[in-house]
Amino acid sequence: MCKFCETKPVIELISGRRLCKFCFIKYFEKKALKNISKYNLIEKGDNILVGVSSGKDSITTLSILHKLSKERKYFKISALAIDEGIKGYRNLKNLKRYCKENKIRLHIINFKDEFGYTLDNLIKKFKFMPCSVCGVFRRYLLNKYARKLKADKLATGHNLDDEAQSIIMNYFRDNLETSARLGPITGIVRDKRFAPRIKPLYFLTEKETALYALLKKYPIKFNECPYSLSTFRAHVRNLLNEFENNHPGTKYSIVNSFLEILPLLKDKYREKIGVCKECKEPTSSEICKVCELRMRIK
Amino acid sequence: MCKFCETKPVIELISGRRLCKFCFIKYFEKKALKNISKYNLIEKGDNILVGVSSGKDSITTLSILHKLSKERKYFKISALAIDEGIKGYRNLKNLKRYCKENKIRLHIINFKDEFGYTLDNLIKKFKFMPCSVCGVFRRYLLNKYARKLKADKLATGHNLDDEAQSIIMNYFRDNLETSARLGPITGIVRDKRFAPRIKPLYFLTEKETALYALLKKYPIKFNECPYSLSTFRAHVRNLLNEFENNHPGTKYSIVNSFLEILPLLKDKYREKIGVCKECKEPTSSEICKVCELRMRIK
Repeated sequence: MCKFCETKPVIELISGRRLCKFCFIKYFEKKALKNISKYNLIEKGDNILVGVSSGKDSITTLSILHKLSKERKYFKISALAIDEGIKGYRNLKNLKRYCKENKIRLHIINFKDEFGYTLDNLIKKFKFMPCSVCGVFRRYLLNKYARKLKADKLATGHNLDDEAQSIIMNYFRDNLETSARLGPITGIVRDKRFAPRIKPLYFLTEKETALYALLKKYPIKFNECPYSLSTFRAHVRNLLNEFENNHPGTKYSIVNSFLEILPLLKDKYREKIGVCKECKEPTSSEICKVCELRMRIK
Repeated sequence: MCKFCETKPVIELISGRRLCKFCFIKYFEKKALKNISKYNLIEKGDNILVGVSSGKDSITTLSILHKLSKERKYFKISALAIDEGIKGYRNLKNLKRYCKENKIRLHIINFKDEFGYTLDNLIKKFKFMPCSVCGVFRRYLLNKYARKLKADKLATGHNLDDEAQSIIMNYFRDNLETSARLGPITGIVRDKRFAPRIKPLYFLTEKETALYALLKKYPIKFNECPYSLSTFRAHVRNLLNEFENNHPGTKYSIVNSFLEILPLLKDKYREKIGVCKECKEPTSSEICKVCELRMRIK
């Protein structure tokens, strides 16, 4: 029975506590708000751009920030979706309807217009590794449009599982430098070239987020990107899910361990950000990864 | 075929290089020596005490240090074995013979004399968790006898797999503080209360060490401690072995990542070591773990 109101539970938390639908929704929102306030993710007057797909994580992030913005009125939000062009997977119809119903301004950009090719065609034609080219282009577009739309921060739907996976992936590939860019808020606040990224769902698990989205009846699809099924991340995800089953709380421990050393990593790997010789976008190399890929496309 | 002499290979290294028996033995010893020299594990005049069981790791460590000591003559070694009293598992007959044949002085101490009970009886009578009580008592005895025998350093047989497991275990249990005590050389050099621990096999894998011991025909048994089969470490070991099979080099990456942040961890978690109120042995608490356990035994 639910720990608080003795009705039928919908979930058992890692602590062993069981919660009913009503108490779970309350728990979920409280936890997101606590994270926002603890890490100062949103400041007064912020213009927050939420990066959205049609998935549970980003729609949940959008709805939580939308609700908070309507209630407290100290910041504004809008949404940005990127259509990579993945046939049979990416579909923004539901998202458009959701934003329209909730009066959230939605901007849509796509790979075809920006780079001349859909992701499907980039992969077919140039044999790129799907996730790495997609990641580079998405990050570039998110940053570019956050700046264009004068956003102070860019919110993403990353949850605890995503973060634990990234931490372990970087450990397993001896790529600790990249971990310095993780955490509940990343990037350089008040540097006009970057919108810092914030992760409101940082301490909420994949399972909790999926359940919340289901209970709130968001118009989402639960299908997975066809390119992501056999990636290094997928292997790490499977490994962590299996281990978490036998040792509940492992993902929390990973993220908590990581947060202890994150300030040390940031300090050790403090990057000198310059601008790309080609496109003038911020980069830590001479030429940014986007321009490198663009040259290969040409 | 062997990369160097084109004869029948006995192993394929992670790099894809294949080596014959002769070249593998050379590779193995060179790698251990490189580690000893890179991390300055042994200094001129050192009196090194090697912690030994009858297992492949400690016998290999002992033999490598013995050979080096005979060839270079700038340090001395002796061996220390701890008989915990694990029926059907711990047997020091072969070790005694090996040390006698090689004229290595071997000291043997046992739980029964030191604590009044064998490990088997401690577990039966007091329901202790085998690995944690064994670890606490072993570490205590190793340190105590290293001091008694005026050893400058204590060498152990930890290999790359052991280290990768410990690093990940501490991450998965949010116990990063303990990781500050890992590394190829640990402890406080020149503090007379401690003998620093050194790990000559730090960059050699479990598989490489097992093969080396087999090829050298050391009188070892390959059985596993009956208490270690279903521990948290065993789960992490299985997880890493499985992942390494699909992504060769993962264990190396884990250890390399770790070594990048080890100085930061040491700095962050620098312990103030005092002495135990009861037994006057060094400890970071008021009463050391050994005395805590002793009180429970009484």
